[in-house]
Amino acid sequence: MLQKEQRSCFEIVSKFGEARVGKLHTNHGDYETPVFMPVGTNANVKLTDTMRLKEIGAGIILGNSYHLAVRPGLDVIRLHGGLHQFMGWKGGILTDSGGFQVFSLRKLRDIGDDGVLITSPVDGSKMLLTPELSMEIQSTLNSDIVMVLDHCPGPEDSYTESMVSAKRTYNWAMRCLKHGVNEHQLLFAIAQGGVYEDLRKLSAEQLSQLPFDGFAIGGLSLGEPFEKTLYLTQITVSALPSENPRYFMGGGSPALIIQLVEMGVDMFDSVFPTRLARHGAALTWKGRLNIKSARFKRDLQPIEENCDCFVCQNYSKSYLHHLFDRKEVLGGILLTYHNLHFMMKFMNKIRNSIEDGTFKTLKREVLDVYGKGKK
Amino acid sequence: MLQKEQRSCFEIVSKFGEARVGKLHTNHGDYETPVFMPVGTNANVKLTDTMRLKEIGAGIILGNSYHLAVRPGLDVIRLHGGLHQFMGWKGGILTDSGGFQVFSLRKLRDIGDDGVLITSPVDGSKMLLTPELSMEIQSTLNSDIVMVLDHCPGPEDSYTESMVSAKRTYNWAMRCLKHGVNEHQLLFAIAQGGVYEDLRKLSAEQLSQLPFDGFAIGGLSLGEPFEKTLYLTQITVSALPSENPRYFMGGGSPALIIQLVEMGVDMFDSVFPTRLARHGAALTWKGRLNIKSARFKRDLQPIEENCDCFVCQNYSKSYLHHLFDRKEVLGGILLTYHNLHFMMKFMNKIRNSIEDGTFKTLKREVLDVYGKGKK
Ligand SMILES: [Zn+2]
Ligand SMILES: [Zn+2]
Repeated sequence: MLQKEQRSCFEIVSKFGEARVGKLHTNHGDYETPVFMPVGTNANVKLTDTMRLKEIGAGIILGNSYHLAVRPGLDVIRLHGGLHQFMGWKGGILTDSGGFQVFSLRKLRDIGDDGVLITSPVDGSKMLLTPELSMEIQSTLNSDIVMVLDHCPGPEDSYTESMVSAKRTYNWAMRCLKHGVNEHQLLFAIAQGGVYEDLRKLSAEQLSQLPFDGFAIGGLSLGEPFEKTLYLTQITVSALPSENPRYFMGGGSPALIIQLVEMGVDMFDSVFPTRLARHGAALTWKGRLNIKSARFKRDLQPIEENCDCFVCQNYSKSYLHHLFDRKEVLGGILLTYHNLHFMMKFMNKIRNSIEDGTFKTLKREVLDVYGKGKK
Repeated sequence: MLQKEQRSCFEIVSKFGEARVGKLHTNHGDYETPVFMPVGTNANVKLTDTMRLKEIGAGIILGNSYHLAVRPGLDVIRLHGGLHQFMGWKGGILTDSGGFQVFSLRKLRDIGDDGVLITSPVDGSKMLLTPELSMEIQSTLNSDIVMVLDHCPGPEDSYTESMVSAKRTYNWAMRCLKHGVNEHQLLFAIAQGGVYEDLRKLSAEQLSQLPFDGFAIGGLSLGEPFEKTLYLTQITVSALPSENPRYFMGGGSPALIIQLVEMGVDMFDSVFPTRLARHGAALTWKGRLNIKSARFKRDLQPIEENCDCFVCQNYSKSYLHHLFDRKEVLGGILLTYHNLHFMMKFMNKIRNSIEDGTFKTLKREVLDVYGKGKK
């Protein structure tokens, strides 16, 4: 990791309180933070191709190591020369470690200090996912940002269970660091600690001693009350080094993002805008619209008056309503485009407001509209 | 119809035998023929938005009057000012009359000389679709090319039944003509006659006496043997005026198109390329590929080496195979784009080969590859 310490992957360009605008340097371009990263499970952002992702202004997208290792398999991705080439994406890619899938597959895994024994839901085959194997997988995927393998507890886990998983996460992080990644890859640690304040602080502080390129806040937004998500993120962020990028895993509602940016969080990912789109919900500056609602049947206006995305430039809410009514997939395709476009504009507004000192006003506006729709 | 006769909507630019390159003038642009028209049931070409349709080079697309009159309903389309505005398409639109839906809904309709009593499969309500009503519907849709209401017999219908339907089609065509359409709309008749040579000839000859802008060959490619489709089209085409555009309804396989172009057919429509795409089949100059086949799992090449569509420029067959394997809709989106792009290039090649005298060579090449996959 010596080379890594010589250069920094992150510069802070501007600050407003703890909120900051930064620049994240990756092997596939430099990206301004705070950044929202669309989720590309199965090597695609659902209903969106990479030409359109680029057009929308997406910078970094997320890939899921575990899913990709199962299907199409690493041999296929290796043949292409990595995940970028496989999925035809020239921007940045962050890969998760498989740790969150471990969390999701509760019944199909057995966690020990060495790693996680996962039973494939596809064919019942077993795979021992160790920190080293996760690094190997992500080296093969050749993503720009690699996440350590972590042990993610649930919000209902006891203090002792949360302590055990935080300790294990720390040990695994050290093993990931020792194993190393490709020279041009960045390696991020993940702070855990469940819903317990002191464990959160401890986990973040211990990981901060290690030479990671960035730090993630993991294991939150998993069903605990929203206020608790905010509070525990604050505790974690305060214990992380300020010169490195901070990444809140798996949260993407506008109300969450704007409050975490205020604490100094730089990176976000979520299926939120794309999943909403497939269900007929559009994100706007006046809040969420359910395009399937009968009140849009005769609405000649676009989703959003001032939106410069091609969907708002060409189609009425009435037309989009019709597509959903007829169960035409094009409805989801178009809403996905608008929603991701909205998220990119949203992050852009956040960055501008930090730079020109209007962050508080923007935050108030966003919470007025999205505060009740918080996730 | 007097104004119509003063100007011609169609010019023949070049000929090779009976095959011809023409220019079709519509209220939304001029289009070179032979032309392939993608089908846009429910006011969308499945999995493709109108930006992409334009990018692919699609000129005229098809809309279905009956479907649109049921959902979203004419009031909604009228509010938008027509089908073009409703679906965000600035190119040409040809609308069918509902006649083919009448054919498809055999159990739900009752045909008399006045029109067709259709029972809605949605809510059981009844609608008497008359030639006049069909003209009214298409006037509201404000398409560029309007089709008369016809009575389409099936290939298994008797001589007498086919005669009755041909006569009725003629009477209805006259009523459509008398009722009229919007001034800038073109009105096409449809020749019927079932699978009977003399009825085919008679139907085409009688309609040819009337001042229609164009003539369609209807009621074929409905299950009769391929050779019969070709033969009966030949009979029909020979009886139609040569100075008007000729449109073969509902056929779009490369083997069919190239043989009908040779006879002097100018216009085609089919769900063929888009439906194939959703099922994982790609059209190429070497034939159809089933991208779901295991042999493409590790194939790093694009669908087609020399294709300049963005799908072939960015994605391997292995990636497309993976998307279908994971049931990701993006697979169908990408194949739809490639297949429609292929069809546009195919029609372009046909037009060029007529102009430069290499049509026979092209025909041989196409039949070598697609002759067995004929539809
Ligand atoms: Zn928009
Ligand atoms: Zn292509």
